[in-house]
Amino acid sequence: MSASGPGDCFLADCPGRLTIELIAEKWTAVVLYGLSEGPVRHGELIGMIGGISRKVLTQTLRRLEAHGLVSRHAYAEVPPRVEYELTPLGASLIGPIHVLTEWARTNGDAVLDALDADSEATARNG
Amino acid sequence: MSASGPGDCFLADCPGRLTIELIAEKWTAVVLYGLSEGPVRHGELIGMIGGISRKVLTQTLRRLEAHGLVSRHAYAEVPPRVEYELTPLGASLIGPIHVLTEWARTNGDAVLDALDADSEATARNG
Repeated sequence: MSASGPGDCFLADCPGRLTIELIAEKWTAVVLYGLSEGPVRHGELIGMIGGISRKVLTQTLRRLEAHGLVSRHAYAEVPPRVEYELTPLGASLIGPIHVLTEWARTNGDAVLDALDADSEATARNG
Repeated sequence: MSASGPGDCFLADCPGRLTIELIAEKWTAVVLYGLSEGPVRHGELIGMIGGISRKVLTQTLRRLEAHGLVSRHAYAEVPPRVEYELTPLGASLIGPIHVLTEWARTNGDAVLDALDADSEATARNG
């Protein structure tokens, strides 16, 4: 459309934007990460992830399945067993998520320090 | 606290989680990307980013400033000039964001195809 560059897809509307918005959903990255070691059951994910409700996990898994990132396998056993695993597409997203989490690990404290300083400045001025 | 591994910080509550949640806010990554070429004015960012309102951009810039990722410079000129630019901390986040956007560029169509297939299956079964 207009002049092109690496950021255009990101700055304007395009299919990639949908992906960014999916990743931006609060639990998407956390749940994908939880699946990154292999197939797991719903209850196992609940145990791995702090602060997610069963309902929100179910909704998140359903959304990831709709986007082609997660597959659901129901085994006809007694008792019934359902497992979730990454598709190849979902697995390819683990690397980019890892880059982000490494940044967070390295710089999280600096962000918290900035927030503290900002709160103090606001309290002084406000 | 418990057994440790690369994903622990992400799966449990920790300072890094705050950062992930910041990045997950809808406009954070887009606005940081818009600032990645150097200082820009509010109105220039509006022109670069599709679909953001002036008010939401102002809120986003304020939030990024509070987190130490963006600095605001007001120049005593006539008319007054205000520019925004990345701090070194904010600039260090551009690389990780770029990795994500490249993933989106490569795989965005596959995600859209999955969504289409899922909608059709839902329409058939529902």
